[in-house]
Amino acid sequence: MGNRSDAGKGAKRDRALDRDLLAAWRPGWSLPGEFYHEDEVYQLDIEHVWRTGWLFAGHTCEIAKPGNYFTMEVDSDSIIIIRADEGIIHALHNVCRHRGSRICSEACGHVSRFVCPYHQWTYGLDGTLLACRGMQADLDKSQFSLHPVHVKEVEGLIFISLAKKPVPFAPVQRALAPLLKPQGFTRAKVAKAVDYLVQANWKLLWENNRECYHCNVNHPQYIKANFDHYNADDTSPRVREAITTVVTRSEKKWTDNDLAPTHKQTGMTVFPDAEHDVWFSANRTPLADGWVSESMDGQQVASLMGDYPDADVGTLRIRTLPNFWNHSSCDHGVSTRLLPVGPQQSAIRVYWLVDEKAVEGRDYDLAKLMPFWQLTSEQDWLICERQQKGVNSSAYTPGPYSPFKEYNVESFVRWYLKKISRSNS
Amino acid sequence: MGNRSDAGKGAKRDRALDRDLLAAWRPGWSLPGEFYHEDEVYQLDIEHVWRTGWLFAGHTCEIAKPGNYFTMEVDSDSIIIIRADEGIIHALHNVCRHRGSRICSEACGHVSRFVCPYHQWTYGLDGTLLACRGMQADLDKSQFSLHPVHVKEVEGLIFISLAKKPVPFAPVQRALAPLLKPQGFTRAKVAKAVDYLVQANWKLLWENNRECYHCNVNHPQYIKANFDHYNADDTSPRVREAITTVVTRSEKKWTDNDLAPTHKQTGMTVFPDAEHDVWFSANRTPLADGWVSESMDGQQVASLMGDYPDADVGTLRIRTLPNFWNHSSCDHGVSTRLLPVGPQQSAIRVYWLVDEKAVEGRDYDLAKLMPFWQLTSEQDWLICERQQKGVNSSAYTPGPYSPFKEYNVESFVRWYLKKISRSNS
Amino acid sequence: MGNRSDAGKGAKRDRALDRDLLAAWRPGWSLPGEFYHEDEVYQLDIEHVWRTGWLFAGHTCEIAKPGNYFTMEVDSDSIIIIRADEGIIHALHNVCRHRGSRICSEACGHVSRFVCPYHQWTYGLDGTLLACRGMQADLDKSQFSLHPVHVKEVEGLIFISLAKKPVPFAPVQRALAPLLKPQGFTRAKVAKAVDYLVQANWKLLWENNRECYHCNVNHPQYIKANFDHYNADDTSPRVREAITTVVTRSEKKWTDNDLAPTHKQTGMTVFPDAEHDVWFSANRTPLADGWVSESMDGQQVASLMGDYPDADVGTLRIRTLPNFWNHSSCDHGVSTRLLPVGPQQSAIRVYWLVDEKAVEGRDYDLAKLMPFWQLTSEQDWLICERQQKGVNSSAYTPGPYSPFKEYNVESFVRWYLKKISRSNS
Repeated sequence: MGNRSDAGKGAKRDRALDRDLLAAWRPGWSLPGEFYHEDEVYQLDIEHVWRTGWLFAGHTCEIAKPGNYFTMEVDSDSIIIIRADEGIIHALHNVCRHRGSRICSEACGHVSRFVCPYHQWTYGLDGTLLACRGMQADLDKSQFSLHPVHVKEVEGLIFISLAKKPVPFAPVQRALAPLLKPQGFTRAKVAKAVDYLVQANWKLLWENNRECYHCNVNHPQYIKANFDHYNADDTSPRVREAITTVVTRSEKKWTDNDLAPTHKQTGMTVFPDAEHDVWFSANRTPLADGWVSESMDGQQVASLMGDYPDADVGTLRIRTLPNFWNHSSCDHGVSTRLLPVGPQQSAIRVYWLVDEKAVEGRDYDLAKLMPFWQLTSEQDWLICERQQKGVNSSAYTPGPYSPFKEYNVESFVRWYLKKISRSNS
Repeated sequence: MGNRSDAGKGAKRDRALDRDLLAAWRPGWSLPGEFYHEDEVYQLDIEHVWRTGWLFAGHTCEIAKPGNYFTMEVDSDSIIIIRADEGIIHALHNVCRHRGSRICSEACGHVSRFVCPYHQWTYGLDGTLLACRGMQADLDKSQFSLHPVHVKEVEGLIFISLAKKPVPFAPVQRALAPLLKPQGFTRAKVAKAVDYLVQANWKLLWENNRECYHCNVNHPQYIKANFDHYNADDTSPRVREAITTVVTRSEKKWTDNDLAPTHKQTGMTVFPDAEHDVWFSANRTPLADGWVSESMDGQQVASLMGDYPDADVGTLRIRTLPNFWNHSSCDHGVSTRLLPVGPQQSAIRVYWLVDEKAVEGRDYDLAKLMPFWQLTSEQDWLICERQQKGVNSSAYTPGPYSPFKEYNVESFVRWYLKKISRSNS
Repeated sequence: MGNRSDAGKGAKRDRALDRDLLAAWRPGWSLPGEFYHEDEVYQLDIEHVWRTGWLFAGHTCEIAKPGNYFTMEVDSDSIIIIRADEGIIHALHNVCRHRGSRICSEACGHVSRFVCPYHQWTYGLDGTLLACRGMQADLDKSQFSLHPVHVKEVEGLIFISLAKKPVPFAPVQRALAPLLKPQGFTRAKVAKAVDYLVQANWKLLWENNRECYHCNVNHPQYIKANFDHYNADDTSPRVREAITTVVTRSEKKWTDNDLAPTHKQTGMTVFPDAEHDVWFSANRTPLADGWVSESMDGQQVASLMGDYPDADVGTLRIRTLPNFWNHSSCDHGVSTRLLPVGPQQSAIRVYWLVDEKAVEGRDYDLAKLMPFWQLTSEQDWLICERQQKGVNSSAYTPGPYSPFKEYNVESFVRWYLKKISRSNS
């Protein structure tokens, strides 16, 4: 369950393992099987990826009022995300400083303070120990706040970091805020969230996310709306003309504001960038002609969100490693949050967001809002579960990446290997 | 599954681990997380606690007649407890000496001899190999008795030890017999037993058992009947007066016999005593005024047990490490047997005992007999399961014990650490 | 899950473990407990037994037509067994050479080519990569055939080997073909197959298979039909006379052809032979007087199979290590295929075969065809599950084998130990 032996031993073992593993990869080829099923690699991933990076936690609208909280599990760690009285959001380890009981057992709720159910140690919403009846009078309560977790917001998205000293978040804010702002996630609501326990290593899910080579056959809905399943090798004149048409129209229309397309070609936008350690990105890109929303028929399925003046805004794409991607249309946004549960298991939550004032039945209908991304997501989970079984085989050997279609998969692998090796240098 | 690699390797690894672990504890503070979730520590516990100490197995009344047996599981070991023809109780490993088949698959039953279901090797009730049709004629049957387990009785309670040379049992008998005798467990019957699989390390269950700091909020039934949830820091004059009243009354009444209270204050009796290796204790203590039984309303819920002349006998408390505690009133006794299943899992059986002549529906009613301890027990299991989840977190750090309320928890930890270190010296 | 760490480290650890384990066995006695529950031994078994030997996969009649396939799982490996257009049978690792996805998810089916569901890499029925749309034009497709698995047939039985250089199969063909031929498995059909997940190490299942010491009490059906539960120590004059009668009658009748009995005594035929590395054998032996089929009442339960001129042909027995045994009568054959799932878990399929032209309801009835071997098999699975629990005990110690009844169990143990040690020399 991801429990760790003492840090000293662990680190020494990890460094040796690490060298072997890094040497085992051949550029241009998929990772050796150990990366996807060995518990030792999983522990390395937890330590060097999941307990160092910025993790998407949820949306500010999920905890709109002071006292509202939700919890999330990162391997064996439970984190509370809470909005305090002043409106500030705190993230706290869900572990009493007395004898370690979990404090909140619910997935979300409302509290005025945290009272540990074991001996009623009582904490403020910022984690400060307020009372511990029964303890020695001279106990220095200031030493027993709930262990804090770093937390940041950007335009309605909440990120946390379990690192002692996380990498700066400001670059993410600078990069994402302008693109995110018109989508209006700060004034949104979660219309629906669906949880999945996928039997696949988290890296397989990212590798799947980073290419559309698999889209043609597996995602009949997705490919109708988008251009990124075409690549350098199969962008026909007809396809090129189609994307040029919608790009040109968009650029003409949105020349004065932030809605101009930033990704204007077929193929997926380049991401991540291991060399420059770019683990976040966002872009706006046109939808196919006749589509204003990633819905089954391309038509609008909810009220307009955010600052959008009309439905013709293409689609906004955001992704942050190691656990978040979002596809947003004029009327709704779909966030995907990935969390590791074990070497061969990942917990995924998919959220459908609409404008906070939209009323179900009047302004949107789940039966129309959800299928496009529910189908596309579930198609991917099935793909990754089949791949997990395959890479578990003793006969699995790495295969070559397509330079046309899997450039981002290789970038992800480079980013990942750098992440687990740099931390040990 | 608690299966062990060969003893030589295991012991060497254990000793190294052991030194690290002992050094990791800071007196006055709770144990580091490894103690509650690491498999290596669990194996150490099995070897140095569970396979050395005296384990409560059950009650003599469960196997009243010769040929009656029950089985119990200690990690991967199954033990048969059987009453033989002469009335003597034997404990035997439930493993055929031929090719290792489990012999008894039932939890309890009656046999005239043990016949292994595989090849019908046949053993007497004391484990002697009586017949092994099909083997070589010169096989020395005396070398193939079922592996014996040490077994002892004290006033109706059966204890076993898996150790080669267990510590002497006589001190337990001397200490417990006088207090136990009037309760009459030798003339009791099990009215009901309930089994629980609790998702918590066995030590968390003991730590929970060794303090009543958690009682006020968690055990609304228990605190009405008892005084031990009050401690040095919160025994108000009113509480002190209340306990003095009942103690004085009891001492006056019972001056001539064994029913006088032996624990006369608020707070829990001091137990265990690591320095003197005291792993067993019993005491009689008064109930709150107006209570004659640990029942929901304090009223008697069954016929009087044992030698009790009337209902006004307070409550008898017994506990033996590592796996037994009992709370008994004038009319019934409640035994709790704890067994380890894995690092994060324990099997617990709670037994309700009444006088052997009591008839259900006439002399007692399960709906009145059971709730007090059923509720209190289940409240504790839930607490421990929440704590298990918390101490699994990478953010868990040991916290301070209250000197007023958790002195026995620290004593338990000292006893435990001495147990796992002494065995290796 | 049987996933392996890198080969170099694994092999070194294995060799050390191996020496300890081999030294731990005392000839004439059962194996120490580690062999049945430790993961390290299980990995050794997978590598040195299951990935070196010839494994029974199924019957040619299961894939009668070109394009028909079935899959089987050997620990973490999935293998496709397919009949190609020319009628040739191929065995292929079910792992795409691109990014490792499992290709076939079904247990059996029909295909004209294999298309990986992830990115549609397309393979011929012999595993050749035919197409990989989207890859670089200069990719040498000849380097990306599905990893092949060795495959051989003998008279309707299919065997595979995961070894790089398997041991020769020709001796098996020479030895088994003459006995198998008249049974007609090449012209048979599977009337029914039943799958079991047995909670026991694969070696316990073989040890059970290699003696009939347990038959008298456990197999009331089997012992009525057969002589092999009698051994040197309990073949009474009456039994000797009975077998002599049926043997003599058979020899007289079948003097001119291949149906003469080859095993003519009570007791099980000697198998395996560790010294000469004999891991396969077959023999014909008479049934009890009045029995022509291993059915509940000994009467024929299906049309005659193969070349049999009449029902009086005794019974054909075949076994190949590490995973196959078959009992066949004049009218039906029963194959048992054993596969390892974990240290304490095995997947077993039992197949009932009849003549390909037999029609259910007219020529056979499952209710009469199945019970004899279904009961006998399930009786054995229960025995082995009880034994697994017993050998998991810390109190299990090896016991002595009966020289009369367990000579083949000891032979199996010798064969096994030689197998895991030789591979490391």
